[in-house]
Amino acid sequence: MTTEAKPGPRERLLEAAATLTYQDGVGIGVEALCKAAGVSKRSLYQLFESKDELVAASLKEGAPAYVAGLLPPADDGRSPRDRILHVFEQVEAQGRAPGFHGCRYLSVQIELKDQRHPASRVARRIKRNLLTFFRTEAERGGARDPELLARQLILVFDGASARAGIGVENLKGLITPTVVTLLDAADVR
Amino acid sequence: MTTEAKPGPRERLLEAAATLTYQDGVGIGVEALCKAAGVSKRSLYQLFESKDELVAASLKEGAPAYVAGLLPPADDGRSPRDRILHVFEQVEAQGRAPGFHGCRYLSVQIELKDQRHPASRVARRIKRNLLTFFRTEAERGGARDPELLARQLILVFDGASARAGIGVENLKGLITPTVVTLLDAADVR
Repeated sequence: MTTEAKPGPRERLLEAAATLTYQDGVGIGVEALCKAAGVSKRSLYQLFESKDELVAASLKEGAPAYVAGLLPPADDGRSPRDRILHVFEQVEAQGRAPGFHGCRYLSVQIELKDQRHPASRVARRIKRNLLTFFRTEAERGGARDPELLARQLILVFDGASARAGIGVENLKGLITPTVVTLLDAADVR
Repeated sequence: MTTEAKPGPRERLLEAAATLTYQDGVGIGVEALCKAAGVSKRSLYQLFESKDELVAASLKEGAPAYVAGLLPPADDGRSPRDRILHVFEQVEAQGRAPGFHGCRYLSVQIELKDQRHPASRVARRIKRNLLTFFRTEAERGGARDPELLARQLILVFDGASARAGIGVENLKGLITPTVVTLLDAADVR
């Protein structure tokens, strides 16, 4: 028999916030978060300044897994074009998974409608890193206008994950041809 | 002096629901809706079965204005290509307006995360009409694959309004070139 380190109240709150805000939205109540985490309200407010700060922290904690699930490994030897297409293959695969509600870092900003909210700030920063990835690969791939291509790619990324997330689009036969058209037009071969 | 017909409680509730759910999200409380409309809770529940039904009704009521603000008039003599581009010019202009939070019919579905919610159903139906407009114009314009082009256009539409709505993209120099690239690739001249 092995003994596993049981996650502490902080980890359980972060996990509950990540799961419940994704499933039910950022409007989820403090009661529900505490109940799911098995933590008292008192403990929550000892560990985090506010529910907003807990949600922001949970988004930040989730960033490495988000990045790993989308981006190719650094220096994997593939062309910039293939590295960009890799991201969209992941979006297509994720979009098919049950319980997919779109990109959490887009949803949270749409739901909060407040750019100064701590969770919006975290989400914006993480998505800006995705934009930077696209721009870097666009530059490496010799895109005619790397800035334009990067903005187009993240627009398609957000449109695709939003539409798959609300269950009106399965992305099959859509996302790859769209990205290929944009890459071709930008001369990224 | 003219006498104006003062909007009744039903109209005031629909107006309050449209404004407040757009500004603050569908999680807005019944109290806030009643307060903004100057209507008692009792009246709300006499007029609508539930808050969900009120929100759904307000989305439905807003559809003609939404369509008029985006789509060109029927038979305006312009080419299908220009009629499609017209929609995206409207999106770009709307995206610059203060208080823009993206397409309300996308946001509500993202926020609710429940495809069977009455408001999600209304929103889905209205967006399906936009998809139909794109497909019809794509067919008329001789697109190689009208279905694919229509799906691409609504993907760009949703990505663009979402990103403008959260204040990370102004769409200038982005949305028209993107749509032009997709139209060119589909042979819609």
